[in-house]
Amino acid sequence: MIYLDNSATSYPKPQCVLDGINDAFKLYGANPGRSSYKMAIDTSEQIYNCRKNIADYFHMDFAEKVIFTHNCTTALNFAIKGLAKKGSHFIISNLEHNAVVRPLESLKKSGICEYSIAEIDEDFYCTLKNFERKIKDNTVAIICTGASNVFGVIPPYKSLASLAHKYNKLFILDYSQIAGVVPLDLKKTNIDIVCCSGHKCLLGPTGTGLLLINNDIVLNTILEGGTGSNSWDLSQPNYYPDRLESGTQNMVGIIGLSKAVEYLKKYQRYSIYNHEIKLMKYFYSNMKYFKNVIFYTDIMNDNKLYAPIISFNVKNMHSEEVAHKLSEFDIAVRAGLHCAPLAHKTYKTDKTGTVRISPSLFTKKSDIDLLINSLGKIAK
Amino acid sequence: MIYLDNSATSYPKPQCVLDGINDAFKLYGANPGRSSYKMAIDTSEQIYNCRKNIADYFHMDFAEKVIFTHNCTTALNFAIKGLAKKGSHFIISNLEHNAVVRPLESLKKSGICEYSIAEIDEDFYCTLKNFERKIKDNTVAIICTGASNVFGVIPPYKSLASLAHKYNKLFILDYSQIAGVVPLDLKKTNIDIVCCSGHKCLLGPTGTGLLLINNDIVLNTILEGGTGSNSWDLSQPNYYPDRLESGTQNMVGIIGLSKAVEYLKKYQRYSIYNHEIKLMKYFYSNMKYFKNVIFYTDIMNDNKLYAPIISFNVKNMHSEEVAHKLSEFDIAVRAGLHCAPLAHKTYKTDKTGTVRISPSLFTKKSDIDLLINSLGKIAK
Repeated sequence: MIYLDNSATSYPKPQCVLDGINDAFKLYGANPGRSSYKMAIDTSEQIYNCRKNIADYFHMDFAEKVIFTHNCTTALNFAIKGLAKKGSHFIISNLEHNAVVRPLESLKKSGICEYSIAEIDEDFYCTLKNFERKIKDNTVAIICTGASNVFGVIPPYKSLASLAHKYNKLFILDYSQIAGVVPLDLKKTNIDIVCCSGHKCLLGPTGTGLLLINNDIVLNTILEGGTGSNSWDLSQPNYYPDRLESGTQNMVGIIGLSKAVEYLKKYQRYSIYNHEIKLMKYFYSNMKYFKNVIFYTDIMNDNKLYAPIISFNVKNMHSEEVAHKLSEFDIAVRAGLHCAPLAHKTYKTDKTGTVRISPSLFTKKSDIDLLINSLGKIAK
Repeated sequence: MIYLDNSATSYPKPQCVLDGINDAFKLYGANPGRSSYKMAIDTSEQIYNCRKNIADYFHMDFAEKVIFTHNCTTALNFAIKGLAKKGSHFIISNLEHNAVVRPLESLKKSGICEYSIAEIDEDFYCTLKNFERKIKDNTVAIICTGASNVFGVIPPYKSLASLAHKYNKLFILDYSQIAGVVPLDLKKTNIDIVCCSGHKCLLGPTGTGLLLINNDIVLNTILEGGTGSNSWDLSQPNYYPDRLESGTQNMVGIIGLSKAVEYLKKYQRYSIYNHEIKLMKYFYSNMKYFKNVIFYTDIMNDNKLYAPIISFNVKNMHSEEVAHKLSEFDIAVRAGLHCAPLAHKTYKTDKTGTVRISPSLFTKKSDIDLLINSLGKIAK
């Protein structure tokens, strides 16, 4: 199978992730932070090391501000609802995933918050203006994706973070699609909160997500419970990570994720991005002359930044049909709306959906050759 | 190591759980319900089979009402906050874990809900009376643990469910401590919602919990996001499991949990309970004549139901010290408050905490002999 659905979840995982998980079941099988026997202490230490390893990967000074979550969706809900108060206003981009839109829509329906959608324009300044125009007194934060999960467009998120700060607002980054591909140095940016998946390009197991807190905010909680700390207190602790990690965490998953991040650290900065974007440019430049293949972005345009994610359609064919035909060539891609209706509305693909190609660091040029060849036959 | 901390998390897991997880990484590595290639379909089918397997274990007709969560704490938050409305009232027992108390305390502090605490009495009728007295017009649900995670006391939860229904209230059961030990046939009870851990006596991996919905309630959501369904809709789907499973789920964990449940199904009903309670009675009957060992419950009393969990203290020693000394004999137990301050207040152990012993189906009589021998030396 040629697997090109890494934006849904990465496959395969490096062997060290499986080995780490198998070791975890044997060596670190206790509940950390709750007992004092050797395996419990070993497990606590191990989880702390995982936290430190991930903090280091994102250049964060404080490991305790690395919060482990179930998935990126949970991290985004924690961030958004942790800031939302009665009367709050948020600004999001027109490329956001339902993991951002649905929590806001739920807050809106409950009469708690409102939100505005700002357009990511072809032009950088125009994009900033679009966001600036939406800022109001009651705006709490700008929320923006690091890359569209459908079209690969990378918004100018660092500049949007600066814009937010200029107005004393916060900036939340949904880094789900490119964590592990595009390096992020949190010491050098003024992004306040980063949310990402553990199981996508970070190559960790499912059941892992990250909430990285890059300032001094104490988020309100939406999940409370036992933390193994301050047990006498009926209220949630107000320090991280305990405040946001209630109940037993996914220890085996966290250990697997940390192993994946160790694996990624061995690669040179941007080498994974360069490898994947080269493959996507190769695919695009080979397919763009097929008159039946419709692209929505021009990944060859060096004036714009793209993540290695491409969406397309074949004329007079539903995206699901194309994906199905590709699967007959043993090529795995995703079709449909990709949980991002706003992005599809922007690119006028909300009726058809798109076929999405998302490689990983393990994808080879020969895989893309087979894709080109197969798609050529389908789109003839 | 003699591991007697299974109420924190079970150790070891059956080999089939590890095998299932390793297979999952290789065979079911796609994101289910989101794509149409073979591995995605295989993964979807596999997750559906896990749901069905677990529904079957709890005698539920509808697999879609088995909701996979990060842990039991998340399940309890989903249940409580999914029912809570402005002005709601809940009744909980005096043995509840912080996973129940802290969410309610948070709702109380926000001015949304209030809650009352009813005492579990030695006398069955007195217990029912205690709960009945607390019922008010605005009471939404009674929430009760299946067994105290500290003292092993099993409240009359089936009768409390009937009491709730008599007054048109709902009943939520926190089954975290005994799921996998005490069988539960949801067809034969009128419990509305059951929450439990996957990684305790169900023997699954960490990162898994269950929310079992045993009626027609549509819970409000506290986490929203992409579900791979109704992607065009900015609101959360109103059908299960999608409504409560936002973002990518812990597929490898779910598959591991299902393998664990398959493993448990091979045991005869109550055989695991009988094995464990026998060991705890053996421990108790050997230790109760040590004048320095203080017990808080009498597990030999056949008129009362106990889970195989025992708490004790050694006179003039802090519980942490006893646990530490036991760890020098390579015996792993937990000490302290066990995230259940209400239970400790009830038994007047809120200053000292307790040492807790919790065996598993893998615990042997020789393990308990070693515990008795070691504790005998410590408590001399």
